[in-house]
Amino acid sequence: MTSPRRVRATVHDVAARAGVSRGTVSRVLNGVGYVSAEARVRIEAAVAEVGYVRNNAARNLVMRKTWAIGFVVHEPHQLFLEDPNIGAILLGTNAVVAEADHQLVVLVVDSESDAARVSSYLRGGFVDGAVLVSARSHDAVADAVEEVRLPAAFVGHPEGRPSVPFVGIDNRTAARTLTQRLLGTGRRRVGMLASALDRDSGADRLEGFKDALGARFDERLVVADPLYSYRAGVDGMAELLRREPGVDGVFAASDAVAAGALETLRSSGRAVPDDVGLVGFDDSAWALRCHPALSTVRQPAADMGRAAATLVLKQLSDRTDVTSVTLPTEIVWRDSA
Amino acid sequence: MTSPRRVRATVHDVAARAGVSRGTVSRVLNGVGYVSAEARVRIEAAVAEVGYVRNNAARNLVMRKTWAIGFVVHEPHQLFLEDPNIGAILLGTNAVVAEADHQLVVLVVDSESDAARVSSYLRGGFVDGAVLVSARSHDAVADAVEEVRLPAAFVGHPEGRPSVPFVGIDNRTAARTLTQRLLGTGRRRVGMLASALDRDSGADRLEGFKDALGARFDERLVVADPLYSYRAGVDGMAELLRREPGVDGVFAASDAVAAGALETLRSSGRAVPDDVGLVGFDDSAWALRCHPALSTVRQPAADMGRAAATLVLKQLSDRTDVTSVTLPTEIVWRDSA
Repeated sequence: MTSPRRVRATVHDVAARAGVSRGTVSRVLNGVGYVSAEARVRIEAAVAEVGYVRNNAARNLVMRKTWAIGFVVHEPHQLFLEDPNIGAILLGTNAVVAEADHQLVVLVVDSESDAARVSSYLRGGFVDGAVLVSARSHDAVADAVEEVRLPAAFVGHPEGRPSVPFVGIDNRTAARTLTQRLLGTGRRRVGMLASALDRDSGADRLEGFKDALGARFDERLVVADPLYSYRAGVDGMAELLRREPGVDGVFAASDAVAAGALETLRSSGRAVPDDVGLVGFDDSAWALRCHPALSTVRQPAADMGRAAATLVLKQLSDRTDVTSVTLPTEIVWRDSA
Repeated sequence: MTSPRRVRATVHDVAARAGVSRGTVSRVLNGVGYVSAEARVRIEAAVAEVGYVRNNAARNLVMRKTWAIGFVVHEPHQLFLEDPNIGAILLGTNAVVAEADHQLVVLVVDSESDAARVSSYLRGGFVDGAVLVSARSHDAVADAVEEVRLPAAFVGHPEGRPSVPFVGIDNRTAARTLTQRLLGTGRRRVGMLASALDRDSGADRLEGFKDALGARFDERLVVADPLYSYRAGVDGMAELLRREPGVDGVFAASDAVAAGALETLRSSGRAVPDDVGLVGFDDSAWALRCHPALSTVRQPAADMGRAAATLVLKQLSDRTDVTSVTLPTEIVWRDSA
């Protein structure tokens, strides 16, 4: 099957088909000025024949408003597929943006060249504002947002970007409380599968883990990976067991990491929670599907998306109460520890 | 923390700050015509001070080209979070679109009002083309694409849209072959957890199942759900066991559905594959994480995304070889049947 080249019809095409000038077509389309009844009929027929549709992008530019809000996901490839938080943040953002009759456009940053192109897009006037998910401190996209003063909000809290408000959780306190609870079950050799130490979320979770352990903290029992991924959990747990076969408690930096760790613990013959107590972070779809179900921290992902969208919309409507938001988390204790 | 209203600076702002006319600013910005050295210095300083950035959206409109390609995901809420195929299709599409230096913009359709708004966006000149994932035959978004003759491609194959090329797989043959293989393991009471019968993919998988069973097909052993979801598997398997406690083989319409079915089989005390042989569809991330790992059909999701992007780009470059594509699938036999 072949499909012909599709080209958007222009006012010029309408004029040519109707045998009139472009000015006459414009007068009909805009309902302004005199046009003979006969020309009007020919023009209306020509509009239908060539399939002319008014270009709203052009009209919106005259109004200096695109009615579009960007949603920038800066995640490597695989994580975008397996992190259910991103989807929940996206749907929360979409709900609020849609309610305000704006169009959410999701921009995926999967490579350096993606970052450069998305930055140009945000600079280029295609969106009225943007929500930025998992931005880093050094980030071309965040640079572009600051440079053109695009109304924006971060989900998460990259350092050194005071001009852009954020929606976050207190990762450090949540990680400390969770680790204390794990220690309270009597575990003596507790390790951490840390992730994304280049981001506030990952770095703060490690700090909270250290806070809870205090003098008992042993750097050798921290295995770090760039990603919050299932794979990081599989490999990190294997490394942790090599370093300390007697490990009896593990804080995984996300539920996906915990699910991977569970796989390695299973294949190495360790029972969870009898031999090893395991806790995750996020209360994502992973948590309930693991056997045993994960003890974890509930992160209000959809609420974070809604709050970030609200911050952007407030900036668009000149509200002055644009304040960063820290949302509460909750420990959900199940069967894995 | 409060953040001031962010407004994009215009040529007007530059002119006001520099104390010159807008025409003088335009001459400097465009490098055309005479401007005194002193005015030029003032204007360049003013550009930096007010943070003026040239509006590429406006320039692109003059060129009748946005360099943006839409990616429309028409999936209800929860499925977007748990269907790993959509992510893989998205990343395949993004890779090809990025390579051609276009920006992929993802548009999520999660409600009727989303569908209307996304349709307006596609009609409105904001993108040069679009990839449509999981479109239905009756679909406002597909209507809009046809109406404005937007260069586009479907992933999947909705009926009654001959003017839009598609990338698909032969769901019917794949389902027939998979069911035959399941029957070959000696199963006698084989049911199906069907999904999305309003779409080609779901309807064709049911047809393939019927083809394999022939005269042994029993309509009572088909439980249908609108979604390819984990939840559909949990509930559908419970219903199938109510209708036929002696069921010993199950074809689930996707791996997510199979994972849900496995949960119900486990909680009802049936061993897989000893008591019940279970097969899925997709070879998604679910397949390997189930215990036992799923026997399934490998669907080349990333390749489908790449092929769909290529179809759109070919239309944008006036190529005449724009032909729908059917990609091959493969049976992956593991431990669940």
